[in-house]
Amino acid sequence: MAKHDAPRIMRDLLLTAGIGINGNNPWDIIIHHRDFYDRIMRGGVLALGESYMDGWWDCEALDQLFDRALRARLDRMLKGGLYAVRHAFTALLFNLQRRTRAHEVGRRHYDIGNDLYRAMLDSRMVYTCGYWKNAKNLDEAQVAKMDLVCRKTGIKPGMRVLDLGCGWGSFARYAAETYGAEVTGVTISKEQVALGKELCKGLPVDIRYQDYREVTGKYDRVISIGILEHVGYKNYRTYMEVVDKTLKNDGIGFFHTIGGNVSVTIGNPWTTKYIFPNGQVPSIAQLGRAMEGIMVMEDWHNFGPDYDRTLMAWYENFERHWPELKDRYDERFHRMWRFYLLSSAGAFRSRSIQLWQVVMTKPGSQQPYCRLE
Amino acid sequence: MAKHDAPRIMRDLLLTAGIGINGNNPWDIIIHHRDFYDRIMRGGVLALGESYMDGWWDCEALDQLFDRALRARLDRMLKGGLYAVRHAFTALLFNLQRRTRAHEVGRRHYDIGNDLYRAMLDSRMVYTCGYWKNAKNLDEAQVAKMDLVCRKTGIKPGMRVLDLGCGWGSFARYAAETYGAEVTGVTISKEQVALGKELCKGLPVDIRYQDYREVTGKYDRVISIGILEHVGYKNYRTYMEVVDKTLKNDGIGFFHTIGGNVSVTIGNPWTTKYIFPNGQVPSIAQLGRAMEGIMVMEDWHNFGPDYDRTLMAWYENFERHWPELKDRYDERFHRMWRFYLLSSAGAFRSRSIQLWQVVMTKPGSQQPYCRLE
Repeated sequence: MAKHDAPRIMRDLLLTAGIGINGNNPWDIIIHHRDFYDRIMRGGVLALGESYMDGWWDCEALDQLFDRALRARLDRMLKGGLYAVRHAFTALLFNLQRRTRAHEVGRRHYDIGNDLYRAMLDSRMVYTCGYWKNAKNLDEAQVAKMDLVCRKTGIKPGMRVLDLGCGWGSFARYAAETYGAEVTGVTISKEQVALGKELCKGLPVDIRYQDYREVTGKYDRVISIGILEHVGYKNYRTYMEVVDKTLKNDGIGFFHTIGGNVSVTIGNPWTTKYIFPNGQVPSIAQLGRAMEGIMVMEDWHNFGPDYDRTLMAWYENFERHWPELKDRYDERFHRMWRFYLLSSAGAFRSRSIQLWQVVMTKPGSQQPYCRLE
Repeated sequence: MAKHDAPRIMRDLLLTAGIGINGNNPWDIIIHHRDFYDRIMRGGVLALGESYMDGWWDCEALDQLFDRALRARLDRMLKGGLYAVRHAFTALLFNLQRRTRAHEVGRRHYDIGNDLYRAMLDSRMVYTCGYWKNAKNLDEAQVAKMDLVCRKTGIKPGMRVLDLGCGWGSFARYAAETYGAEVTGVTISKEQVALGKELCKGLPVDIRYQDYREVTGKYDRVISIGILEHVGYKNYRTYMEVVDKTLKNDGIGFFHTIGGNVSVTIGNPWTTKYIFPNGQVPSIAQLGRAMEGIMVMEDWHNFGPDYDRTLMAWYENFERHWPELKDRYDERFHRMWRFYLLSSAGAFRSRSIQLWQVVMTKPGSQQPYCRLE
């Protein structure tokens, strides 16, 4: 392809999704750099995000741009860049989420700084999808989500609950305060352990700096909210084996995760480079296979559209608090974070990715009443 | 293994599940033939059913026997018989459910005789799992199930609904009568077509003798209730492609099927030989893989325990009507049918198999409100 073909090809592709260049729609792309087309054509998804970070282009409503682009499946056209191919080989040859590497996401993403997350998240600092069915704002949506998890898993006073990937202990705290549970939470972010311990002070909650694979003991409930996105496709079976190993025979297992419509073995190259190192969205087939023979799927709830609303709420909080944050973070970070939140919102709005809550039991168990809303 | 070891080995295995030989518990096995042990050890699952049909053994409550045996996973010990291995090879080399063979199940199972099904089933002749949440009897459970399907898929007056594997048209009739739908149903049993046409007379229902792969046209809703058990693992993708092809872009797809905890490529040898030729229970992994890129999973409901109740209701009806049926069917059929219904009830009770209802849309669609009960 000659270099001068790039603008025409890209304009034609974007037009199929109703996206204009330098137009007046909020989802149109405003180009500031003449090499924009060429950079995207060569570098694909990664270059799209990096060129945005560099200020080569703008868009009034990135979320709407991504919604339109993904509905038209334009991302398929961008695939196959050299980076993606190289990354695929790396993922096949190595276990990117093996224990020695697993702490990378803790250090690089969750340790960015609690001030950023305090500004962006709800008052309880829940960094996963909220449940908006009856919620009027982010705080209510996060409480509703945690309450839904407690009800689906039937948590009762005195039960021992294991929370794999506990974040800042928000769920542990809620389950202890509201349902009287004794919760052990593990995370691989030191900042999360420190703040989590503080937030859960005085409650029967134990927050530990530990890999999910190293947990021992037996629990009445083994849950996770937003860890399977970090586990990696080679470890889904390991994850289920950990649940099996740590769950009592009549216990209930549960996970809450972003899910993909299609099985992949690599993550989005921009997201894995800038946001979630080694992140990867599981599919139904991959999770179903991982459960076989050890866990029975009792209920599979999809509320992906609620992540669109959650991300838009985070984005509003982030931009509103930017004046206080900008001394610690530069403008490139600002644009990176905006791109992350709004492209993700568009991905959920276009139904390219989902949010799943799954309840599981061990084979031979009574089915719990867990089809709740 | 010496022949005289068989009794000891089998007794020990059964004892691990609390099952006695010639004991007084309703789930104990009463042996009438001295070669019983040897026949089972050599012939596995197939021989277990055949020897029951031959009157070599009895059990007061076959359902309880199977519940116990399957919870203890005794079926694993019985696997690996020659028949199973041979059948596995056949399944890998040939597509057992290809079009030229697909009609076998119609002829051999569903054409057995409508009198049998009239005696066994509810008044509307629904030959799939009922929904017992608020039901007091089989009739109510079947109406509740059909109503649940209509509500989950949001069927409105005048909508064109395609029912793949429509049986005797019970769902078509219900959706037309109660929700005002125009329903096209296809089945590969001539007896079902004949009776289905009669039962749906005067309604906007078209019952056709047609393979699900041959359907053309576009529908608002494409549903199936109890067809995926007959489709075969090599055709799950084809099934989803048929849904994709026949469903309007903003339409809703739906299936109701028995599901297995583990992916298999062969059916149970006794069941496939005597009850459902070429039958096979799909897994989450197999169905999830089949949907990828063409259908988005919106909700996955498991109500497997309701099939236990449904089967027990069918069994009671069957035995109560046996005096009227026994002129047309011999005692070996009687025992075969009892073994089929009660071993299946035990399989659901032990949670070895599940009942799934799944709602699907095309990628990019709005999520319908379908998490209903």
